[in-house]
Amino acid sequence: MANRIIGTTPKQDMYRMPAEYEPQRRIYMIWPQRTDNWRAGAKPAQEAYTNVAKAISEFTPVTMLTNSNQFVNARNRLPADIKVVEMSSNDAWVRDCGPTFLINDKGKLRACDWKFNAWGGLVDGLYFPWDADDTLAEKVCELEDADSYRLDNFILEGGSFHVDGQGTVLTTEMCLLSEGRNSHLSKEEIENYLCNYLNCDKVLWLKDGIDPNETNGHVDDVACFVRPGEVACIYTDDENDPFYGVAQANYEALLNMRDAKGRKLKVHKVCTTAKPVLLKGAETIDIVEGTIPRRNGEMCIASYLNFLITNGGVIVPQYDDENDELAISQLREIFPDKKVVGVRTKEIVYGGGNIHCITQQVPET
Amino acid sequence: MANRIIGTTPKQDMYRMPAEYEPQRRIYMIWPQRTDNWRAGAKPAQEAYTNVAKAISEFTPVTMLTNSNQFVNARNRLPADIKVVEMSSNDAWVRDCGPTFLINDKGKLRACDWKFNAWGGLVDGLYFPWDADDTLAEKVCELEDADSYRLDNFILEGGSFHVDGQGTVLTTEMCLLSEGRNSHLSKEEIENYLCNYLNCDKVLWLKDGIDPNETNGHVDDVACFVRPGEVACIYTDDENDPFYGVAQANYEALLNMRDAKGRKLKVHKVCTTAKPVLLKGAETIDIVEGTIPRRNGEMCIASYLNFLITNGGVIVPQYDDENDELAISQLREIFPDKKVVGVRTKEIVYGGGNIHCITQQVPET
Repeated sequence: MANRIIGTTPKQDMYRMPAEYEPQRRIYMIWPQRTDNWRAGAKPAQEAYTNVAKAISEFTPVTMLTNSNQFVNARNRLPADIKVVEMSSNDAWVRDCGPTFLINDKGKLRACDWKFNAWGGLVDGLYFPWDADDTLAEKVCELEDADSYRLDNFILEGGSFHVDGQGTVLTTEMCLLSEGRNSHLSKEEIENYLCNYLNCDKVLWLKDGIDPNETNGHVDDVACFVRPGEVACIYTDDENDPFYGVAQANYEALLNMRDAKGRKLKVHKVCTTAKPVLLKGAETIDIVEGTIPRRNGEMCIASYLNFLITNGGVIVPQYDDENDELAISQLREIFPDKKVVGVRTKEIVYGGGNIHCITQQVPET
Repeated sequence: MANRIIGTTPKQDMYRMPAEYEPQRRIYMIWPQRTDNWRAGAKPAQEAYTNVAKAISEFTPVTMLTNSNQFVNARNRLPADIKVVEMSSNDAWVRDCGPTFLINDKGKLRACDWKFNAWGGLVDGLYFPWDADDTLAEKVCELEDADSYRLDNFILEGGSFHVDGQGTVLTTEMCLLSEGRNSHLSKEEIENYLCNYLNCDKVLWLKDGIDPNETNGHVDDVACFVRPGEVACIYTDDENDPFYGVAQANYEALLNMRDAKGRKLKVHKVCTTAKPVLLKGAETIDIVEGTIPRRNGEMCIASYLNFLITNGGVIVPQYDDENDELAISQLREIFPDKKVVGVRTKEIVYGGGNIHCITQQVPET
């Protein structure tokens, strides 16, 4: 049973978005298949998604959503303990097009169903159409019997914000103030949407993310809460690192921020890759009208910060880079009580995202 | 979690198909939309399916499966307490293409996933292709976390048999021995499939059904178990009734049958319509290659026997016929402890089936 809730907000109804480190019931993912985004017919990406799903399923049950024409293939490639459910999508980024789940203190689940426009719509979106993606959140809510708030006037993706579960939202101006999303709204109005629908009291604004041309700077590539009062942030001292400027600026900004409870943030550093990850195999990506052609040697947005916290596990991208182990060891220090698991995800950054972008949690109620 | 079970049968694994009058957890339906089968863009059929779903949901939760392009419409037309889930299908007959669920005495659910070929495949099937229908059972099993037996060498539809839950199967020769299904198998081999996969010991064969040109005589239009040792059977004394011959023959045959437990069957009569139901509005049905054109005035297969038993309810077709009330009163005598509810389903017989054909139960475990 799933209703649309009209006329009230989660804050009014006493629902809140829990932090990612709170208990989770299930992780959703979407099976990749677009041959104009994924190289080699999406087969290497399917293998990488499978490995991510397997790693998560050690900690939390996984449901893989798949378009009809890939159902049988996905079912055959995935272990039986991963649930496969048909659901139409335009691409495979459930963090951004899926529902943002909320809970109340009476054990009930609800969700925000933000309007989705493929990261910028007709201004600078990444593909057209995006109708199946925009309907996906409602369908997931049906599966979960979760009533939902549909936001027809507010475009938002799950990867563009993090919450601490205690009243604080972390986001970036580059994304939320971008022209292709909510240019009809002021910054204050956007803050009100975030606070009313995530049930928060304070928005912490970073200026930029590291992928201005793709998601317009989603925060989930640069910083996240790791527990109340503490954040992780990408960091490098190397002035030649393409992410140096943004990483330094965000790190300094976070050091000077206080959360909704008035706590000064403790900021943990997470390294960047020693070398940029560059696209290979672009010649096997289909060229279609409306999709920007990809070229070998283009820099991919490979951040160790795009990990998923899921119950007792932290699932972390690995790039065959000499800093892979450093990232793992830093995260083990940040999460001493969790198992930190690396998964090789170069194929996923080739397509424009990473582990956090391709997962969406359903909290325990 | 849903596995394919290889190398054993339900009988070996101690799973059985429960009778329809045993407790049910959920009813599945498929939203109708084919404009080459349903008149007027399937809108009247959608209304009739909605009314059937509402009637069932008074007794048992309902999930409506819908193709992607009808999800939003179905969600908007159905009450919120009916779950709507995207799932591809070729038409809307989940009795026949859906899984046949099984239970064991340890509270576990499994299913048979029969091969489906649209009621006769390339010999005398009703449409092409039928690939989405044939994959649907596996997808429903995923939703229900039910391991399944896939029968690649045995074509069967759920509407072609009934069980009493105590070792007896009731079916028709017209359907199960038809050329378009299992002509590679002998009658004995077909009996073995039924007994091994439904976990039964005896097959009761009726000769014919009443729709040789559509389902090749599914039993669910002519007779069913109403409790152990008792069946209902369509019956008419009117020699001009188009179903007179089949009804008389089946009634006589049933009177002389014993079930798997050795009980002589008690046979209850269910009336036929006073007048045949004739197709109207055929001019609004799309004409496409591969589908037999429909003509106004064609006789539809309108049987009161095609009802659904679901927990405390019996949902019965009504045709605006003068025998509608007689059918209801007969069924009230047959089911004194259940609520017998009529639903007007002329639009569904226009498309070739009725309430039993468009529903599939998940038993309580």
